[in-house]
Amino acid sequence: MKKLLLFGLGGCALFTVGILIGHFAIQQRPKNLLFLNLRELTKVPHMATTKGDEETVQYVLKRWQDPTSGLDQAWREEYLVHLSFPDKNQKNSVKVGREKNYTSDQNDPEVVQPYAAYSPAGHAKGKLIYANQGKTSDYEHLNNTLNLTGTIAIVRYGGAGRGAKAINAAPFGVIGVLVYTDPGDINDGLMSDLNETYPHSWYLPPSGVERGSYNSQFGDLLTPYLAAKQDTYRIPKETITGLPPIPTQPIGFEDAFKLICDVKMDIYNKEELKNSSNVMGVIRGSVEPDRYVIYGNHRDSWVHGAIDPSSGTAVMLEITRVLGKMVKEGKWRPRRSIIFGSWGAEEFGLIGSAEYTEEYYTKLFERSVAYINVDISVFGNATLQASGSPSTQSVLFTASKQVKTPGHNSASVYDNWLQYFNRSSPTYGLIPNVGHLTGAGSDYAAFIHFLGITSMDISYTYDRSKTKARIYPAYHTAYDTFDYASKFIDPGFTSHQTVARTAGNVLLRLADSLLLPFNCSDYAESLEQYLQVALDNFQEELSKHGISMGELCQQQHITCVRLNTASLSGERSTVVNIRRINDQLMLLDRAFLDPMAFPDKYAYRHVIWASRSSGLATFPGLADAFEGAKNSGLKQDWSKAHKHLSIVAQAIAGAASTLEEVI
Amino acid sequence: MKKLLLFGLGGCALFTVGILIGHFAIQQRPKNLLFLNLRELTKVPHMATTKGDEETVQYVLKRWQDPTSGLDQAWREEYLVHLSFPDKNQKNSVKVGREKNYTSDQNDPEVVQPYAAYSPAGHAKGKLIYANQGKTSDYEHLNNTLNLTGTIAIVRYGGAGRGAKAINAAPFGVIGVLVYTDPGDINDGLMSDLNETYPHSWYLPPSGVERGSYNSQFGDLLTPYLAAKQDTYRIPKETITGLPPIPTQPIGFEDAFKLICDVKMDIYNKEELKNSSNVMGVIRGSVEPDRYVIYGNHRDSWVHGAIDPSSGTAVMLEITRVLGKMVKEGKWRPRRSIIFGSWGAEEFGLIGSAEYTEEYYTKLFERSVAYINVDISVFGNATLQASGSPSTQSVLFTASKQVKTPGHNSASVYDNWLQYFNRSSPTYGLIPNVGHLTGAGSDYAAFIHFLGITSMDISYTYDRSKTKARIYPAYHTAYDTFDYASKFIDPGFTSHQTVARTAGNVLLRLADSLLLPFNCSDYAESLEQYLQVALDNFQEELSKHGISMGELCQQQHITCVRLNTASLSGERSTVVNIRRINDQLMLLDRAFLDPMAFPDKYAYRHVIWASRSSGLATFPGLADAFEGAKNSGLKQDWSKAHKHLSIVAQAIAGAASTLEEVI
Repeated sequence: MKKLLLFGLGGCALFTVGILIGHFAIQQRPKNLLFLNLRELTKVPHMATTKGDEETVQYVLKRWQDPTSGLDQAWREEYLVHLSFPDKNQKNSVKVGREKNYTSDQNDPEVVQPYAAYSPAGHAKGKLIYANQGKTSDYEHLNNTLNLTGTIAIVRYGGAGRGAKAINAAPFGVIGVLVYTDPGDINDGLMSDLNETYPHSWYLPPSGVERGSYNSQFGDLLTPYLAAKQDTYRIPKETITGLPPIPTQPIGFEDAFKLICDVKMDIYNKEELKNSSNVMGVIRGSVEPDRYVIYGNHRDSWVHGAIDPSSGTAVMLEITRVLGKMVKEGKWRPRRSIIFGSWGAEEFGLIGSAEYTEEYYTKLFERSVAYINVDISVFGNATLQASGSPSTQSVLFTASKQVKTPGHNSASVYDNWLQYFNRSSPTYGLIPNVGHLTGAGSDYAAFIHFLGITSMDISYTYDRSKTKARIYPAYHTAYDTFDYASKFIDPGFTSHQTVARTAGNVLLRLADSLLLPFNCSDYAESLEQYLQVALDNFQEELSKHGISMGELCQQQHITCVRLNTASLSGERSTVVNIRRINDQLMLLDRAFLDPMAFPDKYAYRHVIWASRSSGLATFPGLADAFEGAKNSGLKQDWSKAHKHLSIVAQAIAGAASTLEEVI
Repeated sequence: MKKLLLFGLGGCALFTVGILIGHFAIQQRPKNLLFLNLRELTKVPHMATTKGDEETVQYVLKRWQDPTSGLDQAWREEYLVHLSFPDKNQKNSVKVGREKNYTSDQNDPEVVQPYAAYSPAGHAKGKLIYANQGKTSDYEHLNNTLNLTGTIAIVRYGGAGRGAKAINAAPFGVIGVLVYTDPGDINDGLMSDLNETYPHSWYLPPSGVERGSYNSQFGDLLTPYLAAKQDTYRIPKETITGLPPIPTQPIGFEDAFKLICDVKMDIYNKEELKNSSNVMGVIRGSVEPDRYVIYGNHRDSWVHGAIDPSSGTAVMLEITRVLGKMVKEGKWRPRRSIIFGSWGAEEFGLIGSAEYTEEYYTKLFERSVAYINVDISVFGNATLQASGSPSTQSVLFTASKQVKTPGHNSASVYDNWLQYFNRSSPTYGLIPNVGHLTGAGSDYAAFIHFLGITSMDISYTYDRSKTKARIYPAYHTAYDTFDYASKFIDPGFTSHQTVARTAGNVLLRLADSLLLPFNCSDYAESLEQYLQVALDNFQEELSKHGISMGELCQQQHITCVRLNTASLSGERSTVVNIRRINDQLMLLDRAFLDPMAFPDKYAYRHVIWASRSSGLATFPGLADAFEGAKNSGLKQDWSKAHKHLSIVAQAIAGAASTLEEVI
């Protein structure tokens, strides 16, 4: 079977609520193409701005510009950005070995040596101390009994952000940080490469090292809020914040366990301005070309990046192939425009997507219906996992009910998902759990946090009851190869297919439905949960400090009533009325933006989903400010909590007024 | 003749560019109503939040809520805001007299004594020094030859903002500031109340004192970026910036001239949290109710405020009467919604309008087509004057060509205007000069600067070749009364009528035209002028510091090409296409917003029209940063200039991408 993508027509029944899209199905031949895409994309290392990266730019661009592709337009966008590399001539050294070769991939001269991007160069020599995960509390704990001045800390991945491990250490006098991958966190304790680890299983070999960016904000560091063009003003390097202040280096557990008391670090990283490219492709909308559904993934890897990110790029190319073909054959054109983005330099801090949102801020703000991110498409082959703005829950469910899981059983992706991740909803009972996009783990960050565009992140993953691995074990190492992916992550690439079908189905529904398939009452449910957590944890203490949660409760009540009735309001008897309702739906997440809310958190503007330090799943500014005040007891910190209470009340009120009868 | 408002139907010919609105005409009977409105509104002093203010709230509300009014809805919006008042029991004193009574108006016990709102209370005694206009350069000049420590400065109005006169003084050791109205600036030198000044002419009597807010930002001072509701977080008073740090008091010229060497000031102002109200009225749009044309003016005065602001309120009530009647009679309903706003507490710093924009930010941002401000509607009866975003020039011209000037000659408002204020346009030749909205002189500020809504400010004014008066002489004094207005400003209220007709015509065109009557190429002309000034003044020097204007020139070129062709692009064959083009037009000014551009300028976000200190009519951030760098020579200041160059280039690029083919 060659042609399997079926759905209703784009320009169909104008006054109907939604349209039947049918299901997105890619089978035998597409499977081979997916396989071919991945093999092609992962032939060589393609770290951002390297020769290998340029080859992937050319590969994607050629595919999308090919006149038979069906895309209306494809081009590259280039930014001049501040990256950090090891020195090719002087190896960073902690007197450790290199990653062992198990396939020819690790032998490629373009494999970048393990390093902590944005760690300063420098030399450190000192006594080694073990500092758990490098959280501030970890260093404080040690500091009670030891003098940390002049020591080198060894910490394991997890618990705190990469850069934070060194930023937290420096105030205690620590002069260098080594970060290793603990076999307990990644390998379910297995440590031998004779039979337990890759190439015998998916587990990380003893010499494997997780690379990564140790930058704690996102976007190009020298051009905050400005697209990094040639002539753009760049801040002085010394004013960049959020980077490790002391030499930092990741190492494998083999080396970590060999280290003795005195350690010497020689780090030769250097920073460079480099041109990084996004590749963009467009299918023009037939009815509302000025409404965009954006689908994206990064293209750059640390080494070969078969899983991160090429599993996602392969899926994106498959989706563009199938949709492009339909356009080309004149069978279909979406109601709204679809923009595909293959982002550059994500690994250094979501740079390509962030620069894109800075450059096209106004246009994207005004016109974007949604952003779909599929970065690592397959972490494992057990189940779907998804995060998103709550209003996307229903379209994620609808799509996942229409796609079958791989293999012989006939369960839907939805039914399978429900087995692995679920929650009890006051409205629906037991349903799959859609996560919140509260961090900046991938390229959705600039879209949801900076622009307030309704976003989601979709992938397949492994069975967490069978492994405690914090992420697939070869993540960011030289073992994340086509060989690894095809043997241990997704043999037969059936989960890749499933993600392509599910994400493709979501994409089509967003691009084609007459009324946008966003469910406002699901947003209300999430807000109600947030409010309940806030009331349970903060109300009593706040009122002791004369701060009332009354305004927030009242606004929230109004907003939830409106969210629960929003999709029903207004006549739908005219094209203009449909557009009006869709505009209300499109702009709902925008209503929660406040550019003044988080002056210390770069580009975080979404008052509900911004990152938080607090473990409580509630309004992030309020939760963090409350905990700060509780710890310090200072009046000014209680004022900050009050301020965040007002900010969130106003944002929620703004959402309510967006949803009420338009005038 | 009773019914004189004539225009084409709202829902007419769908695919035509614009519609014939016809002309707005209000004659005999309306004239009487205007007169009645003004007399009613100015019976008693109605300073913000006083009993008199509440009476005007009730008056406007009653008019708009009356079932026969034709408005669909009217309500009040209340904010709890931080105001400053003199102490009723302890007169501020500089050993001066009070404003003399010429009519019973001045005798009203509710006449607020002259004071500088937001001046601190305090007592100062010292030698008097004359410091011209209280600019920094004025104090520097004196400081070269005198020790200013412990002195009291007397300065005249003009040249620097009210608050700035005291803020500039304090660093030199000055302990108090007196601000007087110079007869040379306001009275063409005339000073005698025996025959030269009011009640014999429009000139200010010797005892008249200009009150005013000495606050240098806008909106409620305790709730930056948050609507001032009951529970809202309020910053500590001591952290407010932009207020006079030393006691400050305005005085009349009679007293100024009597002052001797040693002066004692006793200031008893106090700050209070007060409820201030906006009154809102709505006519719902028939086709696009989710598109708003907002028309507003403040309602509060310093004393009776016949001219400021009641001349504008009278015009607004006349417009609502005429339009409401048409709606009521079923003859007409606008295509888009019209929102009328009667703002509170403008005199204290545009508070009512600013709080409104903070509370409804998202909704207004997404849906507002334009804001029309008519504050003082008649400064004098010689000519129209108007300021606005450049894209409003054409609709101002079209409207003013359709309205006749008062009196027996048959000249159009346009032809008359051309005689008084004109400029030579590269595109059109000699045309009336439409000013830029670069400051925060009235309630348009929050709309254009904070929200990026295309705005305009319209009034009638006096012949500047016949008087040098910096403003009408009774401004902010106890002489700004109905008597003064009807005798000296606009006998017969014909200019009030003319403003009602002109502003009403503009309003109807914005609310009814199928395609919004904004001319993008007029925006291009203004940007080109700005760029030329920047190139002439900055390019050579910037390039010496390695800063290229290339990117700006290139972006500007692209933008101007698009501005010049924008209104022609795209098919207009469907309702959705029309809406798409209108969205592009509506959001053009929004594209120039950057909330990070002016961290030191509260609520200024519009990169083109923000306030500037520089006298050069060009990009404000760049101009001020350039002058700063030129003066200091510091590398960091040149960096700031470079940063502002990038900010403006990116904003202009954003506008270009808003205007190009939508995808």
